[in-house]
Amino acid sequence: MTYALGIDLGGTSIKAVAVTPAGETLAQTNVPFVDRDMEWAHKVRATVGQLEHERGGRASFVGLSAPGLAAKDGRSIAIMPGRLIGLENLDWMTFLNAPQPVPVLNDAHAALLGEVWLGAARGLRNAIMLTLGTGVGGAAMVDGHLLRGAISRAGHLGHISIDWNGPKDDFNTPGSLEHFMGNKFIAQRTGGRFATTHDLVQAVEHGDKAAEETWLRSVRALGCAIASFVNVLDPEAAIIGGGIARAGRLLFEPLQKFVAEYEWRAGGYQVKLLPAQLGELAGAYGSAANALGAVGNGV
Amino acid sequence: MTYALGIDLGGTSIKAVAVTPAGETLAQTNVPFVDRDMEWAHKVRATVGQLEHERGGRASFVGLSAPGLAAKDGRSIAIMPGRLIGLENLDWMTFLNAPQPVPVLNDAHAALLGEVWLGAARGLRNAIMLTLGTGVGGAAMVDGHLLRGAISRAGHLGHISIDWNGPKDDFNTPGSLEHFMGNKFIAQRTGGRFATTHDLVQAVEHGDKAAEETWLRSVRALGCAIASFVNVLDPEAAIIGGGIARAGRLLFEPLQKFVAEYEWRAGGYQVKLLPAQLGELAGAYGSAANALGAVGNGV
Repeated sequence: MTYALGIDLGGTSIKAVAVTPAGETLAQTNVPFVDRDMEWAHKVRATVGQLEHERGGRASFVGLSAPGLAAKDGRSIAIMPGRLIGLENLDWMTFLNAPQPVPVLNDAHAALLGEVWLGAARGLRNAIMLTLGTGVGGAAMVDGHLLRGAISRAGHLGHISIDWNGPKDDFNTPGSLEHFMGNKFIAQRTGGRFATTHDLVQAVEHGDKAAEETWLRSVRALGCAIASFVNVLDPEAAIIGGGIARAGRLLFEPLQKFVAEYEWRAGGYQVKLLPAQLGELAGAYGSAANALGAVGNGV
Repeated sequence: MTYALGIDLGGTSIKAVAVTPAGETLAQTNVPFVDRDMEWAHKVRATVGQLEHERGGRASFVGLSAPGLAAKDGRSIAIMPGRLIGLENLDWMTFLNAPQPVPVLNDAHAALLGEVWLGAARGLRNAIMLTLGTGVGGAAMVDGHLLRGAISRAGHLGHISIDWNGPKDDFNTPGSLEHFMGNKFIAQRTGGRFATTHDLVQAVEHGDKAAEETWLRSVRALGCAIASFVNVLDPEAAIIGGGIARAGRLLFEPLQKFVAEYEWRAGGYQVKLLPAQLGELAGAYGSAANALGAVGNGV
């Protein structure tokens, strides 16, 4: 039986799916690792071996995603400083001894492809994805093309400046969306009162007015950024994922309101705001979709 | 001889070129009109007739660009409220009695295609264009694809918010790049001291310190926006055109500095800042390129 493996190498675990070309899931797994001595690489190889063993034959297609910027030829991650030492320029076809190329994607790019293939953006040709977590990740598909760009950096939507006089983030962007929404800046944004966005949202749920004000400021920043993305990328939908999106209606209801305030609704057209559906498996499904050529126009 | 006609319908004049598939210019013309009773439409038809008459035979390819959002099928402008009454949904193939479809583009999209075909972005697969004039126009090509989007709105780069608490522009965007750089806001930005950006730049040239401060604020806003576009669209080059770009080194020197301050230079990669080369004919050349399928991957 023809099937694909999609592997998403994260910061602390490997998510993998075995899936048919029609999108039927045959197996899924989550393998934690410690980031030392390329343990992640050996565990990816072992995971592929295990999944192929279970299916009784090699996968016809294998795709992989990981943090960092993919190489031009799509066979490796070219740029990923500081973490996952050994990942840069590792050719996954060679490393996995695969019978054919193993296409490699940035993890956020893969997550969007996954949502377009089998999730919230199913069948859309114009969609953006925002992953609200420690940082704010992103990716964009326009006219059926996943945007990659000159060095596969396109879609870093968390690093748009919405406050040009604000402090710079890790990527040199002043007052970025990530600064306003990323969990890593929550203590800074709340004067140390909250350690996580989850705590903040719980306080909002319990009627804490100061917490609500802080939270709505973040949501308004997100709404403003989405209005900019509408003008630059013209999506049919913005898919919102990541841990912070679990806030549910506490996120989506005010977000609808802020987007309505800032969106250019040419011809009455409105962007849809949709929660992501594939959770932490989005990247694995997207990697499989990439290997299968299952979505969009290809590159 | 096989040739193409590229027509750019502007706000006050029609620019047209006759050009070979190899990019050799055979003729060019600029026909002013008054925006009433569809004078522009009849003058486009007369211009096409005149150019075809001069060449002794009909053009093999005709492309057109105009303000507004192009229709999904690329045969007309679907949305253009308030000006050029009669343009919306006018099918140009029918109107021009052309032997084959006349592909229609948004004017900023066409200008970028022109610069990619024969101008500053020649041969690039990843480029953005910013046209600094009354407003701030824009367009983007990523991975060889001109970005159009769900309703052909992609690339409205002037309408990115860089100051989320700023006043809203015509498109509902708070503190937009257009607000900081567009000529239409110059009196507002300078407390009525300058009526045009040209006057402001002349004062800078003559050593006026207050004027310089105002001007550098605009240039810094542009640099900040370009840094955001680098993260979202990942271009090799930003092409800067429009009347305000004639400021030359007074624009480009500080702009380089501000972009250096804000740009994420992953792997040492730097976006190039290049003056547009085709001036007011960019849209006409881009319309011809679009009809010829001369640049990029098509859609």
